[in-house]
Amino acid sequence: MSYEGRIWCGTVNSRYLNQKIQLFGWVNRFRDMGGILFIDLRDRTGIVQLVVDQNNISNFQELKISNEDVLKVVGIVRQRPKDKINIKIPTGEYEVEVHEITVLSKSSTLPFPINEEDYKDVSVDETLRLKYRFIDLRRPKMFKNLYFRHKLIKKIRDFLDENEFLEIETPILSNPTPEGARDFLVPSRIQKGKFYALPQSPQLYKQILMVSGVDRYFQIAKCLRDEDLRADRQPEFTQLDLEMSFINYDDIFCLIEKMLKEVLLTTMGLEIKVPFLRMEYQEAIDKYMSDKPDLRFPYPIRKLDIEKVQINMEGITNDVYFLILPQTIARKEIDNLYNSGYKFLYLVREGENYKGTLLKYIQLEQFGKFLDGIEDPELKNKELYTVFVIFNQPKVKLNEIKQVLIDRRILLPTCSFYFLWVNNFPLFKLEEDGRISPEHHPFTNVHPEDKDLLMELYNNIDKLDSGMRSRFASIRSLAYDLVLNGVEVGSGSIRITDPELQKMIFSIIGLTEEEANSRFGFLLNSFKYGVPPHGGIALGLDRIISILLMTNSIRDVIAFPKTQSGSCLLTNSPSEVGEEQLKELGIKLLPLA
Amino acid sequence: MSYEGRIWCGTVNSRYLNQKIQLFGWVNRFRDMGGILFIDLRDRTGIVQLVVDQNNISNFQELKISNEDVLKVVGIVRQRPKDKINIKIPTGEYEVEVHEITVLSKSSTLPFPINEEDYKDVSVDETLRLKYRFIDLRRPKMFKNLYFRHKLIKKIRDFLDENEFLEIETPILSNPTPEGARDFLVPSRIQKGKFYALPQSPQLYKQILMVSGVDRYFQIAKCLRDEDLRADRQPEFTQLDLEMSFINYDDIFCLIEKMLKEVLLTTMGLEIKVPFLRMEYQEAIDKYMSDKPDLRFPYPIRKLDIEKVQINMEGITNDVYFLILPQTIARKEIDNLYNSGYKFLYLVREGENYKGTLLKYIQLEQFGKFLDGIEDPELKNKELYTVFVIFNQPKVKLNEIKQVLIDRRILLPTCSFYFLWVNNFPLFKLEEDGRISPEHHPFTNVHPEDKDLLMELYNNIDKLDSGMRSRFASIRSLAYDLVLNGVEVGSGSIRITDPELQKMIFSIIGLTEEEANSRFGFLLNSFKYGVPPHGGIALGLDRIISILLMTNSIRDVIAFPKTQSGSCLLTNSPSEVGEEQLKELGIKLLPLA
Repeated sequence: MSYEGRIWCGTVNSRYLNQKIQLFGWVNRFRDMGGILFIDLRDRTGIVQLVVDQNNISNFQELKISNEDVLKVVGIVRQRPKDKINIKIPTGEYEVEVHEITVLSKSSTLPFPINEEDYKDVSVDETLRLKYRFIDLRRPKMFKNLYFRHKLIKKIRDFLDENEFLEIETPILSNPTPEGARDFLVPSRIQKGKFYALPQSPQLYKQILMVSGVDRYFQIAKCLRDEDLRADRQPEFTQLDLEMSFINYDDIFCLIEKMLKEVLLTTMGLEIKVPFLRMEYQEAIDKYMSDKPDLRFPYPIRKLDIEKVQINMEGITNDVYFLILPQTIARKEIDNLYNSGYKFLYLVREGENYKGTLLKYIQLEQFGKFLDGIEDPELKNKELYTVFVIFNQPKVKLNEIKQVLIDRRILLPTCSFYFLWVNNFPLFKLEEDGRISPEHHPFTNVHPEDKDLLMELYNNIDKLDSGMRSRFASIRSLAYDLVLNGVEVGSGSIRITDPELQKMIFSIIGLTEEEANSRFGFLLNSFKYGVPPHGGIALGLDRIISILLMTNSIRDVIAFPKTQSGSCLLTNSPSEVGEEQLKELGIKLLPLA
Repeated sequence: MSYEGRIWCGTVNSRYLNQKIQLFGWVNRFRDMGGILFIDLRDRTGIVQLVVDQNNISNFQELKISNEDVLKVVGIVRQRPKDKINIKIPTGEYEVEVHEITVLSKSSTLPFPINEEDYKDVSVDETLRLKYRFIDLRRPKMFKNLYFRHKLIKKIRDFLDENEFLEIETPILSNPTPEGARDFLVPSRIQKGKFYALPQSPQLYKQILMVSGVDRYFQIAKCLRDEDLRADRQPEFTQLDLEMSFINYDDIFCLIEKMLKEVLLTTMGLEIKVPFLRMEYQEAIDKYMSDKPDLRFPYPIRKLDIEKVQINMEGITNDVYFLILPQTIARKEIDNLYNSGYKFLYLVREGENYKGTLLKYIQLEQFGKFLDGIEDPELKNKELYTVFVIFNQPKVKLNEIKQVLIDRRILLPTCSFYFLWVNNFPLFKLEEDGRISPEHHPFTNVHPEDKDLLMELYNNIDKLDSGMRSRFASIRSLAYDLVLNGVEVGSGSIRITDPELQKMIFSIIGLTEEEANSRFGFLLNSFKYGVPPHGGIALGLDRIISILLMTNSIRDVIAFPKTQSGSCLLTNSPSEVGEEQLKELGIKLLPLA
């Protein structure tokens, strides 16, 4: 047996007409039509039809071929008669007249069908798919996902290599972090009582590489985080992790935009517009009430200026918000919203035709003038729109109304994929217990315009009160997220490189000097020997690929994913191990509560 | 600050002559010559000389620049006067007349020098290098290692992608294996009392991928093994792991040869001859007493046929061995061997000139005829050689003599890099306690010619005695190693795909059916649904790269290696963690013995 000379099933074409070829694959479908046998043979490239005619049928019938048997086939490629052409498959003009068949492996009946039509009909439980992953991955759709994933990551590597980035592997056996709680731990057998941690990210190593002068680093890195798994999270995930020296964040933005443009064009023929829109964190919160707005639906929540548009109703306070959508919405849908409990006024305009509850309370002319003052690329046609207005309610209600319309597919996306930068994230967040913690991570640099404020607050930290806390929360950082279709798919920042500032941040977030030194001492120490300004980003590849392929779940783009309880249903991990083995590691189990 | 418009230090050339450029880098050397300042600025591409002349010196002297400070520099590229050209560096014809300097970061005095000459002089302890890895990696040699590693792995990926291989990531959080002892374990917090294991290799997953029809899989995979670390071993290492369907081992050999030929040519301009020599395991043992002979020294240990060459000495038994080397060896070296305790006869021929102790006991003519019968490409010139003969001693003594001559650099390699396939490894090995265990791993297929023997022995396994044990040990497998310069750098096999045979092997190596099912049940189960014949290989990339770069240690080609006790001296991992954190994982420490 040799792959030299093998023809892939899905590539049989006119080049091989009337030639003897060798094929390997699985029986996708087998039909014994009495006088003639048809076998659809499948490999990862597709399907080709094999034919055994009357003269030879007796030789092959005794093989008792059934679906999913693995065959080696030798035969001659023939043109199919015009009326037998199968236009559904690329090889449909041809068939292979079988000379020899070797059954390499027999198959039992599959636990679920793998061709698209039958699969859809039976609605296979994901638990079963994960247990029989070896069968699930035979589905052409699943193979396509793995293939796309491979190609996309390959193109990312090509691009970064061309741009002078070095891929450098950082350790899997890393040091526990002080936050700790999310670390997976690995007991050391040689140094009993001590533990490695699996990396939550290569953050510290990549900063060390910048101090080393590597200048441009990247890694397709496995990261592990022991979190309570929400739906569509995995305990291990794959990041494109990168870091650059002597740059500001514009450089990171340009690089990632250029990379994605090139990679998406070559892998899926998708043309994306660059540069991506950049939005300040505060603007995102104000307009979309989210730090990851989905701008396929680019409709902000706005405040109505009641100086300019008077609403003739009692009890109206200053907080009147509106949402304007560049389309008419049917009365039925609006009634649905009412019936779901939302309270609003609305106005639907279609040319000179106005309808809706808002009409009673405003002057149309006034309102029209007000709208003319709004600059919004999505509102070019101001003769066709629907407006929702709320008052005396939190503005999130309008956001919910928008979401209901999206979920009901009344509001349709303006494009398939929308990338957005959200930048200038806060440096800190306030925990419920009053602690100040890093919004991003403690190596994030402060926004230069807010550095003085940081210094002022730090110098008065012994007088910390709630007013000061909220001023802390207002300090901006040089952190940014990449958002795709309303999902955070990347996160990065320009880093602190001043050891004094770094110590200050550690102190503000409540790390004692001893803790900081024991965990990050090597980084602080390295900054004493000439550190370049640097920054970077990490992109979540599982999620990006899942969004681009529009899969139902992130698990569909991972070959061997875990369930929400962290189990692999194929291999049954995690599993129990013997007491002896634990003893060798210097640990024992606590009795289960 | 922006990398757009930045010129790398090592790339300053005539293109930029008389132009204003922007540079970033570290001060490699700083000299204040009174009237004039010279700064060698370094980045990862090399060094360029900056000059501050008399007119400007006062502006820059106050910056108090010292070695390893990080600078941003703007200046104009000038041609150096003919007598000032530095031929040691590529930028030596030019210098940069400084207009602006910004000190981005100050450096303390380094704990050890980083330029090659000074570094060699002070013989830096590796412990210090590992602790200050961020400085060690600034050494141009270390950067070159990382750069080569990146490029080599990139080219491997390019080659495999072109050859229709898919890179597929397999889990880091895997299932404990029954051998167990070498597993790093990870306690599961969500499923207390259970453990993940870090993968010793992706073996089972890649076989599952073959059952899935992926056909050609590869991965640059991190593997982890909790062994007692010998010198130059790492608890985590990087493998090129690959697997193919519908092939025999010729296909793997051809693929790897083609890959290495292409990759070594493009990364280091090295032309290697393919196909590599293939040698049966048994031949390697017989001729070189090693399953990984170093054929840069292609001199086998041979048995002397004492029918053809009579040795006139009493007490000679049949076991006379000789080693013939195609060069003369000086009397002094031979005396050294005697003095080290080796006992042998020797003969040195140089044209018609014969010397040595062997002369007394043989007839030259007889011996000459015997040598003429030996076909050996290394022995083309049979007029210049040295022969060592031993008798009544284990033949390993001759191997030791050869090694002494190699270590003393008397015997020089015939080439820099010698790749060799050793194939048909034994299927089993006999453990000291009498158990039969797999020589390679339990998924390795039996050699077709030895399958009947396996069946015969298996059917009589209840009568297992020492004779049967050694017959078990004689069964050959379809396993193979790739050897480079006497080091095993790769290992693979054609796999078992017959579930009955697989069960038989599990039973022979002493796995109960229950154990086999609990650990490998999913693989056995998958074989019921149509499994293609398949095989693969894993290449140890750290080791290959280390040999190709001729580094002293494997640690020199790994960015963040561990010491022999498994410590990272940079980050101080592994380290202690709090009791609370362990409690959350459902474990506690055993008291230290």
